[in-house]
Amino acid sequence: MSDASKPAELPTRVGLLGGGVIGGGWAARFVLNGVDVQLYDPDPEAPRKVGQMLEHARRAYQRLTLVPLPAEGTLTFVDTPEDAATDVSIVQESAPERLELKQRLLAGASRAAGPEVVICSSTSGLRPSLLQVDMAHAERFAVGHPFNPVYLLPLVELCAGERTSPDAVEAAAAVYRAVGMHPLVVRHEIDGFIADRLLEALWREALWLVHDDVATVSEVDDVVRYGAGLRWAIMGTFLTYRLAGGEEGMRAFLEHFGPALALPWTKLVDVPELTPGFLDKVAFQSDEQARGRSVAELERRRDDRLVAILHALKAQEAGAGATLAGWERSLLGRAPSAAATTPAASVDGGPAAPLALYSREIPSDWLDYNGHVTEARFLDLFADATDALLRWIGLDGAYLAAGASYYTVETHISHLGQLHAGDRVQVLTQVLGFDDKRLHLFHTLVRVGSEEPVAMGEHMLVHVDAGAGRAAPVRDGVRERVAALAQAHAGLPRPPRAGRRIGL
Amino acid sequence: MSDASKPAELPTRVGLLGGGVIGGGWAARFVLNGVDVQLYDPDPEAPRKVGQMLEHARRAYQRLTLVPLPAEGTLTFVDTPEDAATDVSIVQESAPERLELKQRLLAGASRAAGPEVVICSSTSGLRPSLLQVDMAHAERFAVGHPFNPVYLLPLVELCAGERTSPDAVEAAAAVYRAVGMHPLVVRHEIDGFIADRLLEALWREALWLVHDDVATVSEVDDVVRYGAGLRWAIMGTFLTYRLAGGEEGMRAFLEHFGPALALPWTKLVDVPELTPGFLDKVAFQSDEQARGRSVAELERRRDDRLVAILHALKAQEAGAGATLAGWERSLLGRAPSAAATTPAASVDGGPAAPLALYSREIPSDWLDYNGHVTEARFLDLFADATDALLRWIGLDGAYLAAGASYYTVETHISHLGQLHAGDRVQVLTQVLGFDDKRLHLFHTLVRVGSEEPVAMGEHMLVHVDAGAGRAAPVRDGVRERVAALAQAHAGLPRPPRAGRRIGL
Repeated sequence: MSDASKPAELPTRVGLLGGGVIGGGWAARFVLNGVDVQLYDPDPEAPRKVGQMLEHARRAYQRLTLVPLPAEGTLTFVDTPEDAATDVSIVQESAPERLELKQRLLAGASRAAGPEVVICSSTSGLRPSLLQVDMAHAERFAVGHPFNPVYLLPLVELCAGERTSPDAVEAAAAVYRAVGMHPLVVRHEIDGFIADRLLEALWREALWLVHDDVATVSEVDDVVRYGAGLRWAIMGTFLTYRLAGGEEGMRAFLEHFGPALALPWTKLVDVPELTPGFLDKVAFQSDEQARGRSVAELERRRDDRLVAILHALKAQEAGAGATLAGWERSLLGRAPSAAATTPAASVDGGPAAPLALYSREIPSDWLDYNGHVTEARFLDLFADATDALLRWIGLDGAYLAAGASYYTVETHISHLGQLHAGDRVQVLTQVLGFDDKRLHLFHTLVRVGSEEPVAMGEHMLVHVDAGAGRAAPVRDGVRERVAALAQAHAGLPRPPRAGRRIGL
Repeated sequence: MSDASKPAELPTRVGLLGGGVIGGGWAARFVLNGVDVQLYDPDPEAPRKVGQMLEHARRAYQRLTLVPLPAEGTLTFVDTPEDAATDVSIVQESAPERLELKQRLLAGASRAAGPEVVICSSTSGLRPSLLQVDMAHAERFAVGHPFNPVYLLPLVELCAGERTSPDAVEAAAAVYRAVGMHPLVVRHEIDGFIADRLLEALWREALWLVHDDVATVSEVDDVVRYGAGLRWAIMGTFLTYRLAGGEEGMRAFLEHFGPALALPWTKLVDVPELTPGFLDKVAFQSDEQARGRSVAELERRRDDRLVAILHALKAQEAGAGATLAGWERSLLGRAPSAAATTPAASVDGGPAAPLALYSREIPSDWLDYNGHVTEARFLDLFADATDALLRWIGLDGAYLAAGASYYTVETHISHLGQLHAGDRVQVLTQVLGFDDKRLHLFHTLVRVGSEEPVAMGEHMLVHVDAGAGRAAPVRDGVRERVAALAQAHAGLPRPPRAGRRIGL
């Protein structure tokens, strides 16, 4: 609900203090949303690390949405916290969790930034009232605590300090919403806010279980991901237990299981001492669990799975999936005009050839139990290639928002070979004809680097006025680009399989 | 890995003690896996409640897998724990968490069951050594702790007591695997095992946050489902923190964040007292969160989302998704012969008509941002209808396992209307022709109860020997059924759109 309730307030430029796992994640989220980033991090390795994070995020976003992303913002590394905070709409601090360090960085940034600039800290648990003590205009400061990977997980905990103004919290929330996140305001300032109170409780208990050899690192994780963790992706602990109470709900559950709370099931306040021996044990078991995979590789796997779960939740219009859908709608609203970015000259000028506008890697979830790509996925490829062509001829967000579009009315697919997971394919698209309302396309699917067709798709599209619900002539701007493309393709040989009919 | 390492040991009949949220979930999982269930529950409402649970599970399984499910087992309610334990291969107790009650039920069942029968308890936290004290042949007893909803979540914690034999744990694990679960053996017997140690720690902290008005019930849940919960569906807390450590991994994380463990962030051992006032507060906020939805409705929503997440993870070959894939393979291996269940007489005898073998509801994730079903999903419908026809003509698990199948080589789709989420559609299938290696099909997609076609699909299939990788004549058994069907359909009018070609 909150995703749609506020207008999106996308900043032009942000200042980031710190480029580690969290700061790098912020950089990626802002840059891929088209926001320029000025980043301060004294670590000489920061540009490389942030660059790799951005690479991961690009890859994840390519899978996350079919909506065209805006042109990337720029990423600039600056030499001081003050430089990062100059000429920006918001500053986000993500330094290590040391109070004095954060206080110093925030105070410096607050003196460089204009008084209207919102300044937030990514701290997982330090109270905002402590962080804002030395700041100029401390009323514009709040905690905005995100979760790793920042470019995929939507939650940001917002927490005001004693001197924070409600306007600052609102302004920060609007920025976070504009980049596809779900801000949640913590009602009272406490150490650890909400999330880290919960996570720390779980984490301590997990450490005890490993310490006491009840389970290995990997077994503790399996208990989470094969069991309760599947529920936690869709609902928290209260709704889970409401359902565990059966038809009688939460009160029944509390009355039934309440007494068990008093059982001595947890180690709780005690923390296992991080002796060298215990550190070795956890690190060794964690290495075993990783099975030689680098952190970068584990991050890619995590991202792929998070993207898949976000898609699943989007389809269910649930939680983080609804946040994703709202972000996609806002992206669509600000998509650049295709005509502005791909001048028609590239058609008129160059030698006539089918257009190669669409390419992708075959994911493993497209396979049936025989290891072949299922037939419907071939039409996914052709449909995506058609979408790419439509964007290319100028069907941008504004054109679609005006209620006009092309719809496919007829499709003919020929299967000539098999595809496997990991194959990199591209679709070559040729216009076979057009008139005022119709567009006749022919797609040839090949592996990148090969000319051998794997499948062919022939398609008839009709231009419609969606409001009126009927065919309507193509509008100006697009008409000219279609005509130019058709003219350029008129000299190409007609594909031998065009116009085929099915029969014995 | 463990899913594939053991042969599936599917029992013929199981005895269940208790038919509440957990016992009813076990009943549903076993019945839908084709296992007969004898259930004892003194609650006169149990048959109604278990019946509703089974309804939910049927609905979830229809979405969970396209692999044909076995014929359902029978569900019989019996009058005593001893009756439930008679003539079964495994007994599963899921009574309320009261030690004396469980001891009494388990002792009674152990006297009625043969000594080779494995007996398990679903307890979330009581030690198996305490539960097995009064049992006959106590060595065949173990804890097998599942998670709600039992018919969807794969995890079962297996925990042996002092007198438990390793064979009993192995035998129970084999049964759980055979019904699609992921058994995990707890290394040392402790109260609460692994999962409830973690869950209780989180739950206590959640209660404190609500008690202290830091967050409402709904906000605590949002912090989970928009944040860390998304990660917990794919990996546990250790792998999560390995990645939070950046390139340096787990040791860096522990050294960096270890000190924070000593911060007083959690309430821990203290439990908020369940005063009437606090009970009212939690129950009221929980009601607000449910927004008038019944528990049954919340369960359906939960199931839809769990199914979607399991599909997402299956596509990534990850965790619970890999468990699902393994279960589907085992189902395929024991699919009944189609020829045995649908005699050819139903073709020869009845009046000739297109076959209506496939029907489904349009899910919301098939819509594009305009609210229309995307074009590739139409081919999903036709491909699924083709699969249904192939099963009907006898391409069962054994036929496919022998390396023979039909592949689609050419497809022609005509779009005549739009579909919306929730539309119930069916596909009517007509055989237009066949020869030794080819099969020519025509599908008409209609809304159930309407004759108005929404789309049509014409398809040419070729019979292949997958091992040899080339076309091959259809095999005996299937050949006769195809011929009979083609003969029955020969008198039907030819669809006017058959044999169409695309052109302006």
